[in-house]
Amino acid sequence: MVDNTADYRIEHDTMGEVRVPAAALYRAQTQRAVENFPISGKGLEPAQIAALARIKKAAAQANAQLGVLDGAIADAIVAAADEVIAGTHGFVEHFPVDTYQTGSGTSSNMNMNEVLATVATQKLGAEVHPNDHVNASQSSNDVFPTSVHIAVTAALIDDLIPALDHLAVALEAKAEAWAEVVKSGRTHLMDATPVTLGQEFGGYARQIRLGIERVRTALPRVAEVPLGGTAVGTGINTPAGFPQLVIEILQRETELPITEAADHFEAQANRDGLVDASGALRTIAVSLTKICNDIRWMGSGPNTGLGELHIPDLQPGSSIMPGKVNPVIPEAVLMVAARVIGNDATVAWAGASGSFELNVQIPVMGTALLESIRLLSNASRVLADKTVDGLEANLERLTALAGMSPSIVTPLNKLIGYEAAAKIAKHSVKQGITVREAVVDLGYVERGDLTEEQLDTALDLLSMTRPPQAK
Amino acid sequence: MVDNTADYRIEHDTMGEVRVPAAALYRAQTQRAVENFPISGKGLEPAQIAALARIKKAAAQANAQLGVLDGAIADAIVAAADEVIAGTHGFVEHFPVDTYQTGSGTSSNMNMNEVLATVATQKLGAEVHPNDHVNASQSSNDVFPTSVHIAVTAALIDDLIPALDHLAVALEAKAEAWAEVVKSGRTHLMDATPVTLGQEFGGYARQIRLGIERVRTALPRVAEVPLGGTAVGTGINTPAGFPQLVIEILQRETELPITEAADHFEAQANRDGLVDASGALRTIAVSLTKICNDIRWMGSGPNTGLGELHIPDLQPGSSIMPGKVNPVIPEAVLMVAARVIGNDATVAWAGASGSFELNVQIPVMGTALLESIRLLSNASRVLADKTVDGLEANLERLTALAGMSPSIVTPLNKLIGYEAAAKIAKHSVKQGITVREAVVDLGYVERGDLTEEQLDTALDLLSMTRPPQAK
Amino acid sequence: MVDNTADYRIEHDTMGEVRVPAAALYRAQTQRAVENFPISGKGLEPAQIAALARIKKAAAQANAQLGVLDGAIADAIVAAADEVIAGTHGFVEHFPVDTYQTGSGTSSNMNMNEVLATVATQKLGAEVHPNDHVNASQSSNDVFPTSVHIAVTAALIDDLIPALDHLAVALEAKAEAWAEVVKSGRTHLMDATPVTLGQEFGGYARQIRLGIERVRTALPRVAEVPLGGTAVGTGINTPAGFPQLVIEILQRETELPITEAADHFEAQANRDGLVDASGALRTIAVSLTKICNDIRWMGSGPNTGLGELHIPDLQPGSSIMPGKVNPVIPEAVLMVAARVIGNDATVAWAGASGSFELNVQIPVMGTALLESIRLLSNASRVLADKTVDGLEANLERLTALAGMSPSIVTPLNKLIGYEAAAKIAKHSVKQGITVREAVVDLGYVERGDLTEEQLDTALDLLSMTRPPQAK
Amino acid sequence: MVDNTADYRIEHDTMGEVRVPAAALYRAQTQRAVENFPISGKGLEPAQIAALARIKKAAAQANAQLGVLDGAIADAIVAAADEVIAGTHGFVEHFPVDTYQTGSGTSSNMNMNEVLATVATQKLGAEVHPNDHVNASQSSNDVFPTSVHIAVTAALIDDLIPALDHLAVALEAKAEAWAEVVKSGRTHLMDATPVTLGQEFGGYARQIRLGIERVRTALPRVAEVPLGGTAVGTGINTPAGFPQLVIEILQRETELPITEAADHFEAQANRDGLVDASGALRTIAVSLTKICNDIRWMGSGPNTGLGELHIPDLQPGSSIMPGKVNPVIPEAVLMVAARVIGNDATVAWAGASGSFELNVQIPVMGTALLESIRLLSNASRVLADKTVDGLEANLERLTALAGMSPSIVTPLNKLIGYEAAAKIAKHSVKQGITVREAVVDLGYVERGDLTEEQLDTALDLLSMTRPPQAK
Repeated sequence: MVDNTADYRIEHDTMGEVRVPAAALYRAQTQRAVENFPISGKGLEPAQIAALARIKKAAAQANAQLGVLDGAIADAIVAAADEVIAGTHGFVEHFPVDTYQTGSGTSSNMNMNEVLATVATQKLGAEVHPNDHVNASQSSNDVFPTSVHIAVTAALIDDLIPALDHLAVALEAKAEAWAEVVKSGRTHLMDATPVTLGQEFGGYARQIRLGIERVRTALPRVAEVPLGGTAVGTGINTPAGFPQLVIEILQRETELPITEAADHFEAQANRDGLVDASGALRTIAVSLTKICNDIRWMGSGPNTGLGELHIPDLQPGSSIMPGKVNPVIPEAVLMVAARVIGNDATVAWAGASGSFELNVQIPVMGTALLESIRLLSNASRVLADKTVDGLEANLERLTALAGMSPSIVTPLNKLIGYEAAAKIAKHSVKQGITVREAVVDLGYVERGDLTEEQLDTALDLLSMTRPPQAK
Repeated sequence: MVDNTADYRIEHDTMGEVRVPAAALYRAQTQRAVENFPISGKGLEPAQIAALARIKKAAAQANAQLGVLDGAIADAIVAAADEVIAGTHGFVEHFPVDTYQTGSGTSSNMNMNEVLATVATQKLGAEVHPNDHVNASQSSNDVFPTSVHIAVTAALIDDLIPALDHLAVALEAKAEAWAEVVKSGRTHLMDATPVTLGQEFGGYARQIRLGIERVRTALPRVAEVPLGGTAVGTGINTPAGFPQLVIEILQRETELPITEAADHFEAQANRDGLVDASGALRTIAVSLTKICNDIRWMGSGPNTGLGELHIPDLQPGSSIMPGKVNPVIPEAVLMVAARVIGNDATVAWAGASGSFELNVQIPVMGTALLESIRLLSNASRVLADKTVDGLEANLERLTALAGMSPSIVTPLNKLIGYEAAAKIAKHSVKQGITVREAVVDLGYVERGDLTEEQLDTALDLLSMTRPPQAK
Repeated sequence: MVDNTADYRIEHDTMGEVRVPAAALYRAQTQRAVENFPISGKGLEPAQIAALARIKKAAAQANAQLGVLDGAIADAIVAAADEVIAGTHGFVEHFPVDTYQTGSGTSSNMNMNEVLATVATQKLGAEVHPNDHVNASQSSNDVFPTSVHIAVTAALIDDLIPALDHLAVALEAKAEAWAEVVKSGRTHLMDATPVTLGQEFGGYARQIRLGIERVRTALPRVAEVPLGGTAVGTGINTPAGFPQLVIEILQRETELPITEAADHFEAQANRDGLVDASGALRTIAVSLTKICNDIRWMGSGPNTGLGELHIPDLQPGSSIMPGKVNPVIPEAVLMVAARVIGNDATVAWAGASGSFELNVQIPVMGTALLESIRLLSNASRVLADKTVDGLEANLERLTALAGMSPSIVTPLNKLIGYEAAAKIAKHSVKQGITVREAVVDLGYVERGDLTEEQLDTALDLLSMTRPPQAK
Repeated sequence: MVDNTADYRIEHDTMGEVRVPAAALYRAQTQRAVENFPISGKGLEPAQIAALARIKKAAAQANAQLGVLDGAIADAIVAAADEVIAGTHGFVEHFPVDTYQTGSGTSSNMNMNEVLATVATQKLGAEVHPNDHVNASQSSNDVFPTSVHIAVTAALIDDLIPALDHLAVALEAKAEAWAEVVKSGRTHLMDATPVTLGQEFGGYARQIRLGIERVRTALPRVAEVPLGGTAVGTGINTPAGFPQLVIEILQRETELPITEAADHFEAQANRDGLVDASGALRTIAVSLTKICNDIRWMGSGPNTGLGELHIPDLQPGSSIMPGKVNPVIPEAVLMVAARVIGNDATVAWAGASGSFELNVQIPVMGTALLESIRLLSNASRVLADKTVDGLEANLERLTALAGMSPSIVTPLNKLIGYEAAAKIAKHSVKQGITVREAVVDLGYVERGDLTEEQLDTALDLLSMTRPPQAK
């Protein structure tokens, strides 16, 4: 908030007078909110504040076009909104209302109304009223949730999807580079039949690509906004045609696929589309968890772990153990995942708390979702740039381990049956010899159960990693 | 499990001999699992057991067609599978393996292999082997998760979507019946401008329809199955063409939109599609929570609550307070929502626990998801049939309350401004008079700020519930 | 429920007549509930049904003693309750009410009232009334939550704590046996300074002992029960002294540390003590997750993993990969943890849903908590008996790996500084030589920075695992 | 971070050279972390940074006392730490490392080591080394989690408990003031037998007092710290007696009940005590949810809701509906609860992610827990001061509603039986007459089933709210 303890001016609202810092662009209702909600010390995400200003701008334009607002007043509001969108007035000093405020976000909506009224009044040289002009044809109840949906839609499209794509590209490059690098498969953490390192990274890339798909399928229900419903969804105090027009303007200005709510009563009272979107983010967090854990384990060692990958050395790993280097980026990403999962729990809890015509936990939903998107976006880029790109395969060790897995006995099932193959695998582990040696040792070749050639073909590691081809 | 403490036979597997109840269709590995996992006392959901049998049937057919299995053996397996699918052998006695077993579901896969081998052997009069024949071209690692995906796909399509549709239809009927029943809107639980009861129920119906949409958009990633990847996704030990063929047969037999995994390494190692689907169920639980809470509150009373709706009397409500009737069905549905939300947490947690080529918490994911779907399906039907259908609107009270809301002053904003309107609302509440009376009392008509006619038009309740129409 | 479609009798309650299966011990209200709640198909946990009967027994005794009930009637109720407690009438057939019922559990309370009335009437040869006699001085609103608290208290004390103790003892035995088995420590999954295997298992044992402590500190708030508050906490319709007396009797009969609510309004309206207890179970699930993951990784291999422990072979691990053995018990326990974490989310969600004098999601809280306790108890015992007891340390490999960790350079910090030690560690890894060799190779001994003797002392692995002793 | 793009100096660490802003007190490793973790843009909580400095101070003192550090160097470190603790260098500019960093917090530990080394070097006029001096006898692995435990312990004791006590006092004042204000009880949201408003608020106060108890019982396991275990719990590189001494100093300096870990291997590898504490915070969030929902509903209206309480008017409630005032503080508190519940999910998830000797999600646990404590503390105070204190009971309406509840028929059970009483209640609701009138109307007095005097006594509302007294 504006920190000016000495210099105040008196503002009033429908409840009476309030002392407001002289330099503040906001007025009485914002000041009341500042005093009412000293809770987290943090305001809304800048992206949501900007989205609020975009709505005000579009509403002013629509109001002017529909004859509700004088053109000059509307122009002044538009000009003021453009400044806010551009960050001219910052997103903190003049927007001091805490996330933990009234659950409808009315305080933040009034904060925006007041700031724009002040700036527009200065520009116009005539009074622009926060409610009667800036908020014309609107209510916090449709404007505020719409600002969350717009900010989230934009963040998903502009930040998260490109970041996930960037990560997928990095993973795909490794999938291609390591397409023929054989390694031991692991199921239940136990030695299994071989795969290629490229197949594993291809799987990770596909997970991320599916993450993008999840976001895309959630988008239509996030991009559907309640704007135009005003107080309770009925559109009271809007001119005819307002919802369609204001959303059309918003679409054009933001270039986002925003749509008007198919049912304004559903759209006003519920934030289910945000709960859904949060679920998609949660699944992406789950995917990243799996990927980072695999990379951490493949990079474990250097001498007492799996030692299959070398993770780029980014910083000394220990304040006490010299020379130690740790998988710091995957760890950071795992913590991001933990936070996203927590934010998701918050969003679901808040989403279930609506009554009748309004959900009153909207601000925390917006803050949690925008944080999750930012964390996932940044984490995906950092993971790609600082870890995946620089991964090096320890080819010698990968090959050696692949050949040591007793599960490479599996192709023998078809030749001598599952039970005989099991006997060979156990013999190999017990004697510490290779599977091939165990086959010979147990007399299968001697007895003619299979030929040396069949054995060579069956035990070829790279061919075990390839799906059978029709001839 | 088969309860036959007196009468045993000796079976063996690759680890040695096991005593198995004489009457059991299963064999050694199932018996080991029975002894290893005395944890919950409950086995897999019948729907998943049936899905496993369907996969075995399709695999036998594909194996025969591709020359991997002798036709007679395949036919015997198919006939045995048909019996299991039909429930001929039950889903408990011969399928005793606990949900809390090995995380790959290997014990349940072997249970099915053993039961089908036993039944098929009886039918064929010749040995059918659990691994070499019934499990041919398969691994628990592709078969078991596929069985979860198939069972979940079927349950979503056959149970949940129709049940949600049934509920939506019931809500839509009320939306239509009450299209013109004016009531007080409520935001922040406080009196707001009017809506119609029909608008509220229309909003609920839309929530449920969106729930169906959520399920539909999640389905493609649930219906994509890892079958064909066998041990680690490479398809080792499958004949060429097997994945395509077995899935084609499964599609045809189940009439479900099952597809082969686009990337078998992703599909085998991760259950992200289930996490995603669970998120959709969670959102539906959130929707039902809102709807049931609204209905409970509208039905609160009869004398000291809102008293706007009469909820059908289904049973005496109190063991001590005579004559009390409670909203028992909405309460049951709210508890279902709480369970679904918990199951969702389980699914996400389990979904994040994979390593390399396998997730090892698949059984609990299947059990949790199938329980969630069953609960939501049954709850939706019960809610429709035993509550929504029988709701009665207390018209007199609804109308009276609608007129008492001070927020009906809102249309006056446009005529005399927000601040004057606020003064009127407060005067009305303080004096205990109607808004119309307050307008007059404060002299607005006398002073000519607005005419009596303007006042009547502005304060017409029903018109406040209607979006403005272009002229 | 009693499955007798042909043979019915007519019962009535305050709402009218109901057809009830002729063989059923229950009556009209139970039958209504059976018809109203076809949701999960499963009733309450037997432990909760028995707890309900215990309360009825104690209430009958207290009522008789306080002159509210005729002694003969009370005796008949007591005798009937004893049969139910002993399981004479089963916990399914005559207790068919679904968990997903009215949120107060009124249907289950009336089910118990009706069954006891029927049995007591038979015994007495005179009418015993479900409400007027069996439910005398009680309400579902105090009785039902009390039954959850008693059942949970008993399960924690009788099942969970002994099972955790059993597991702790098993872990402690390993801690002692392996007290001097040196192994490589691992932090960030990377090679660290050595620890002993015994120290790790001692840490696991301590986690479990702390789990017992968590349960114990949660117990007082679980064992505090609302009984005596009847409908809304005021104790309406109870004789003076009833709460104290009935709870005293319950304490004596159950030998549980049950106490009367310090504030009946808090105790009746909220189930916070259950939320708290669930949090303790959740922490135990978190502990088990860590322990099982460590054991799984130490047992990974046999040839391509860490290979430090051999986990007992309990069953063949793969339907396709012969000879594979997997850590099936730790996996089952991990799934139990996932379920407990989900149940905990359910309990918290339900716990937050109360309004005024009642929480209406009590049945699902009881079912979820009792399931969690049963799963954790059984899982702890199975983990102890089938995995921990049979673990074998691969001594040769443990020792070899311990010496290979470059972090054993750490004691050199004090002799030559962190940066020089880091240079040695990196040289050792890069050249593939031991740390000792690297010290010599880099000339530290030659230059006299440290003597051979200092080097030997500093690099002694076992002494690195021991906290420094005052001389 | 220090924003000085033009002016750099060159620092080095074991990995080489790094360009560091000339004005930064930190050095190479911090700078690497700044570049490696551009994820959330936010660093650790100031309270944790201060706790880290406290540990460094105590360690320097202990090291000096045990002869590990030169006294002058130790003094310089102590002086530097005192400045950091006092906030002299801020908690942002020189402590720029992101929460989402390496999971051990090594980067933040090194950040502190470097800042203190720089400041101490300036003070001493001789080189103080970050690792060899500031970090002497320590490792990130024991220091960093200890800093979380200390900061959380302090925040619980100094912030949360007093704030909860403050709220409990406010609620208790209302409980006393309204001890005899009769109102309708509500169970299932339906009219129940009367309680007093004071009883309800007494229940809320008790919930909060139990919350304090929950925190207190969790504290011992939060206050138990791993300090002294250094790298892996063995205390490698500490002088004999170090853990005891450093913790003794910390206790004395902080006046917190800090204790040394009973088992350093458990304490180093697990953060279960934090998971536990988070569960306690979660239960408090659940309690606040119930309380705030009750207050919101009692304050609903003014004309179409329950209208039992008047919630203080703090700010205009709607940007469109004039005169509307909303329960904004309870809504803010409900959002705090939603956030705490999400943070709790994060903490549990992170807590389960440890491997072997270390959990690597510690920073996010610290940040989430300290946020939860701050939010709950501030929310509790705001709720007390801005809502509870100013609540006004609408006495007239409370009394009227109390008499209108048909459940006041309950005391008649004992006189005429449950079924007759039910008939009266239903008659009263159906005819819209009082219960007393219904008794008379149905002839119970006339027939002599009860006398007028018995009726008056039975229907006295206030006496229904009082537990029966022994005569």
